[in-house]
Amino acid sequence: MTDQTTSTYEEPLQSWQDGATRTAIINFVQRVTDSTHPAYVPPAERIAAFDNDGTLWCEKPTYVQEIFIIKHFHNQVEQQPELRHVQPYKAFWENDRSYFETLDMEAINQLMLQAISSIPQAEYIQRVQDFFRDIRHPHYNRPVTELAFTPMLELIEYLNAYQFQIYIVTGGETDFVREISEKMYGIPRSKVIGSSVAVKFELHNGRPVLVRQMSMLEPFNEGEGKAINIHHHIGQQPILAVGNSNGDLDMLLYIEDQQRSTLPLLIHHDDAEREFAYEEGAERALKAAAERNWNIISMKNDFKRIFSFVPERVTSTSK
Amino acid sequence: MTDQTTSTYEEPLQSWQDGATRTAIINFVQRVTDSTHPAYVPPAERIAAFDNDGTLWCEKPTYVQEIFIIKHFHNQVEQQPELRHVQPYKAFWENDRSYFETLDMEAINQLMLQAISSIPQAEYIQRVQDFFRDIRHPHYNRPVTELAFTPMLELIEYLNAYQFQIYIVTGGETDFVREISEKMYGIPRSKVIGSSVAVKFELHNGRPVLVRQMSMLEPFNEGEGKAINIHHHIGQQPILAVGNSNGDLDMLLYIEDQQRSTLPLLIHHDDAEREFAYEEGAERALKAAAERNWNIISMKNDFKRIFSFVPERVTSTSK
Repeated sequence: MTDQTTSTYEEPLQSWQDGATRTAIINFVQRVTDSTHPAYVPPAERIAAFDNDGTLWCEKPTYVQEIFIIKHFHNQVEQQPELRHVQPYKAFWENDRSYFETLDMEAINQLMLQAISSIPQAEYIQRVQDFFRDIRHPHYNRPVTELAFTPMLELIEYLNAYQFQIYIVTGGETDFVREISEKMYGIPRSKVIGSSVAVKFELHNGRPVLVRQMSMLEPFNEGEGKAINIHHHIGQQPILAVGNSNGDLDMLLYIEDQQRSTLPLLIHHDDAEREFAYEEGAERALKAAAERNWNIISMKNDFKRIFSFVPERVTSTSK
Repeated sequence: MTDQTTSTYEEPLQSWQDGATRTAIINFVQRVTDSTHPAYVPPAERIAAFDNDGTLWCEKPTYVQEIFIIKHFHNQVEQQPELRHVQPYKAFWENDRSYFETLDMEAINQLMLQAISSIPQAEYIQRVQDFFRDIRHPHYNRPVTELAFTPMLELIEYLNAYQFQIYIVTGGETDFVREISEKMYGIPRSKVIGSSVAVKFELHNGRPVLVRQMSMLEPFNEGEGKAINIHHHIGQQPILAVGNSNGDLDMLLYIEDQQRSTLPLLIHHDDAEREFAYEEGAERALKAAAERNWNIISMKNDFKRIFSFVPERVTSTSK
């Protein structure tokens, strides 16, 4: 009775342990795709929203985007060695965290913008592609593009089979994530909603060029911004959303508040052996999830495997 | 060889006259969907962008959105009759254009925002739905939702059959157009890119509510704004775009500038009998189209029919 598009779906979510969470997901998908069920949702409204950092891929020991910014300043020093005596290059080069602790939020943002702005869009894309081609994860020593969580890839595949439209809703910079969304997750660039750098339309020798500016669009895609940007971009509430941090809480509250069945999911990073165990930055989200009876995905208990590779034990570097 | 999804496509674009424009469209679609052709474009990159007012539906004698704003102030007066003595209600009620001519752009914008802001999103949607249910076109005396151009609906259908992803890229208010995009054009709300009202995330009795603010997001979706917002929303350049005014020129320039086959199209409102003949607001676009050898769609010569109904002669009200 359900309108699943692929008939080959013998056993979905194979990397998920049998248990309450997996069952809740499967039951939800079966209900909303069964045209005879009161909870039925037509395909056009089957929107799912996934956070990226910590939800689709590993965000520890540091955001991949942070690695990109550090790498940018290292590249600058390599091209102009004399910069290594000048701040902030010196601090990046020497990995001097004490320098950054002296800076306020605005100064940190300006450094971040320096690495991703003031260049034509095409040049930035090239810079991001170069980065993803070369960079390896500091802990797992794998290309960062292999850092997707296998069970989440299966969840995406499962939802795709049931005609869900899947969006990434990330605090990360939109165009940065767009460069890996199709390749890593099979999610097209147009379905990445992130924090965006303002661009200016200029004519260079009569040809239109979008030039990245030293400012971000409002709102930043975190917290309330996720609900707001979902509204602007999609124009309707997702019925399923997955996050892992306080920055995802408003999005989960926003999707939950509807006259129909919804499934807010929160990933709990509780696996100190295979990934990283931490609750910093997720305290409010975990509390709300417990109070509201949301399904909490325990990476330790719900995931048979985490990555496509077998990770070495990481306990020593987790915090 | 082409990967068309429906095999029932005997004769596309039936309301289009045989001629250079229709042939150019068909040749373009055949080329970019033929996997053996050098101009082949994979489905994920087959993006098409359509302006709305004057491109998909009639924009004369006045934008439908303008009718909405006027109607809003009339409704206010009907609910509180004493307002008819107070500006700006008086001017709206008496259709006193001289009053509006005394206002600057900022004041006009504030009036417009008054009709579409300072209310929760859900309340606005209700207001827009009520409007579209009741309102008739001042000239054709039909529901405004019947004002789509039949040949453009056929073009959308044709592109859909070849797996194009079709966006509306309109100067109109995003959520206003979203209420008719699916019904009139079969284009989902998530594929409407327009001029957007800022929203604020509030908790009302613990429930998340998006409240429309008295300000618009930057940039307004007109001129350069169309290219910029296409970038933010889709993250790639369309290969086909259709517009009809100066406000579409930058979008057409933006899609044209690629290392692959593109099709910029400009509609010329030259049919004083069946629609309205005018070039005001399209002068720069028509000039650029002629210089750059873009295909110009003549409504008079390229369209066998304009609407799903037979229009009465409109010469008297055209300008």
